[in-house]
Amino acid sequence: MTTRVIVLNGGSSSGKSGIVRCLQEVLPDPWLAFGRDSFVDALPAKTQASDAGIEISADGRVSVGAEFRALEAAWTEGIVAMARAGARIVVDDVFLGGASSQQRWRKALGEVNVLWVGVRCESAVAAGREIARGDRERGMAALQAETVHEGVVYDLEVDTTRTESLVCAHQRRPRQPTVSADGSAPGRPTPDGLRERRDVG
Amino acid sequence: MTTRVIVLNGGSSSGKSGIVRCLQEVLPDPWLAFGRDSFVDALPAKTQASDAGIEISADGRVSVGAEFRALEAAWTEGIVAMARAGARIVVDDVFLGGASSQQRWRKALGEVNVLWVGVRCESAVAAGREIARGDRERGMAALQAETVHEGVVYDLEVDTTRTESLVCAHQRRPRQPTVSADGSAPGRPTPDGLRERRDVG
Amino acid sequence: MTTRVIVLNGGSSSGKSGIVRCLQEVLPDPWLAFGRDSFVDALPAKTQASDAGIEISADGRVSVGAEFRALEAAWTEGIVAMARAGARIVVDDVFLGGASSQQRWRKALGEVNVLWVGVRCESAVAAGREIARGDRERGMAALQAETVHEGVVYDLEVDTTRTESLVCAHQRRPRQPTVSADGSAPGRPTPDGLRERRDVG
Amino acid sequence: MTTRVIVLNGGSSSGKSGIVRCLQEVLPDPWLAFGRDSFVDALPAKTQASDAGIEISADGRVSVGAEFRALEAAWTEGIVAMARAGARIVVDDVFLGGASSQQRWRKALGEVNVLWVGVRCESAVAAGREIARGDRERGMAALQAETVHEGVVYDLEVDTTRTESLVCAHQRRPRQPTVSADGSAPGRPTPDGLRERRDVG
Repeated sequence: MTTRVIVLNGGSSSGKSGIVRCLQEVLPDPWLAFGRDSFVDALPAKTQASDAGIEISADGRVSVGAEFRALEAAWTEGIVAMARAGARIVVDDVFLGGASSQQRWRKALGEVNVLWVGVRCESAVAAGREIARGDRERGMAALQAETVHEGVVYDLEVDTTRTESLVCAHQRRPRQPTVSADGSAPGRPTPDGLRERRDVG
Repeated sequence: MTTRVIVLNGGSSSGKSGIVRCLQEVLPDPWLAFGRDSFVDALPAKTQASDAGIEISADGRVSVGAEFRALEAAWTEGIVAMARAGARIVVDDVFLGGASSQQRWRKALGEVNVLWVGVRCESAVAAGREIARGDRERGMAALQAETVHEGVVYDLEVDTTRTESLVCAHQRRPRQPTVSADGSAPGRPTPDGLRERRDVG
Repeated sequence: MTTRVIVLNGGSSSGKSGIVRCLQEVLPDPWLAFGRDSFVDALPAKTQASDAGIEISADGRVSVGAEFRALEAAWTEGIVAMARAGARIVVDDVFLGGASSQQRWRKALGEVNVLWVGVRCESAVAAGREIARGDRERGMAALQAETVHEGVVYDLEVDTTRTESLVCAHQRRPRQPTVSADGSAPGRPTPDGLRERRDVG
Repeated sequence: MTTRVIVLNGGSSSGKSGIVRCLQEVLPDPWLAFGRDSFVDALPAKTQASDAGIEISADGRVSVGAEFRALEAAWTEGIVAMARAGARIVVDDVFLGGASSQQRWRKALGEVNVLWVGVRCESAVAAGREIARGDRERGMAALQAETVHEGVVYDLEVDTTRTESLVCAHQRRPRQPTVSADGSAPGRPTPDGLRERRDVG
């Protein structure tokens, strides 16, 4: 069975969206990209600021309410439905609940074939990127760097601490791996593009 | 049955996204907003520029290929699935195919209750807004102003030629209509927020 | 003497930046555009949030500190120096101090020829646009709509309450005025493009 | 004499703007940031696309015309005037003309004290970042990576090939250098913030 969905999980400023754009570039078929940011953009401004929606405290801690959870669940169903209808989807998420966030996705995905990718980045480096980007609440990167990975199981892990853009850069040289693969279970399905590149790496 | 999906159709720079943000503000429940722009953002950069994806000619004419159509169909299925899973959705679209674009949505929506809203804007004014916004290919506004409405049937129509932001502005004064309703079929379901406001208008 | 600098003054969400882009489009020579937003973007993030910098209260009220004032004065000197070095400049500003803000500009401009343009917009409509834009602190538009014009003297005034984008739109039809001119002192220098258009209006 | 202006020079996607935001964060006084991007944003859209303005060819090569050069010269004068009026300024630029671009700045700066910083990044890595960012014309990064440094003399050089965000990251740990200094001429003036940090590194 072919992989239809790639789920990337990592803390804020760990480099997820850059990796998503690289994957869209190097994978032969067109993959649609959705994620935490595009979901939040779809919310009403008032929900983002309300108790029922998202609250970002002064130190970057994120808490979400019941209304947010309900919309998020419906959104997740919709993303999976796109995959069932034939689209290939890359999703980047921030598993604020660690293993239970993965379980939520697993349940929605059902029989759809998925590749789980962990995007790790050393806390201090992610915090530095947060400043360099200039468009994020300060403190989120450090708070989320470790916690989002707790209890989560991956097919692939990427560490961007020193190699933020090498994923794309290497692609431009023939016969180099796209991503460094750690802990990938042999025999697990992967997108053709990723597998080919891992074979020659 | 309650309206679950609002579909706004109008040409480029007709003011759709401003209306979407106003609706999200004034409607009592939280509505998720998706649309043509967020779909295109989800595409790989290379699909946007390829023959199989989107081509925008020097005069602003948009043509789309087979690959684009297939992903768009899957995306539409997903949006409808979010509504079926309990979310309220506002979608803004540009019916490049006029009535046939509406038919495509109708088929995907099935039994889901929808409110069709036409967003009209005089061609010269939309072209002026296109310049004032500064982030759009020139010529799209004028080319699309009329054609996207050909053969399309609406529950409500809004003309933004002279009232671009009055939808929100009026909201701030008690007992004024949110949108000017033309040609709405009596008895057709509408979101509670919209109906209430039309009653007092 | 030819006009070298156009200064637009108006409250938040009154439509200044759209008018700036239209002027850049319709005026025959290239004009550089700077303004309140590009100045604030040039500040360190930490200055924006500090007591010495900018403070935006929950109701949209803006207060600025001594550090901000000093940098603003140096920036103003630089903008005028660009004009003295031969560039044509359009600046949009928010005269939080009303007449005293204009006096600050006058002093910096010295002998440089300037056209003062007031951009007015009815408070409720500007507040509506603030919601429709979705990227501004709520409440600024209403608070600033009147106060920024107190005691300020203009060569031209534009009211965008009902005509937000008509400035550009009309341009696209031959022999129509670019801007509606109220209270312009006859004999005052104006940019060639503006004068021609006022003559035929 | 105190350094008033820091000029960073590097190719597209070499990481200049991230470094600028980090410097604004870590330097004790407020520094205003301007650069190639904010200058181009100030140009009329029509100048950007005209023969007299900027032309970006399909392979990412940038050429600029006479009108662009004249406005750029006036802009440079204005930036220097801001420094003379008391502001501290960080400018990031792309020296398309190598040594002659530096000479142009030197002439405008006159007696104003400047720190020259070279931002280098291996061509393949910059090209990877260009893809990951997703908002730049493809090919510019590779074309500019080496050429912009030809004949240019620096006080400091930063290589971002492997350390894109470490500048900020290290700041967050006490007693670490802000930037790695190569080829800095001893005795040359540096901003107080930079010098202190180099001493303890």
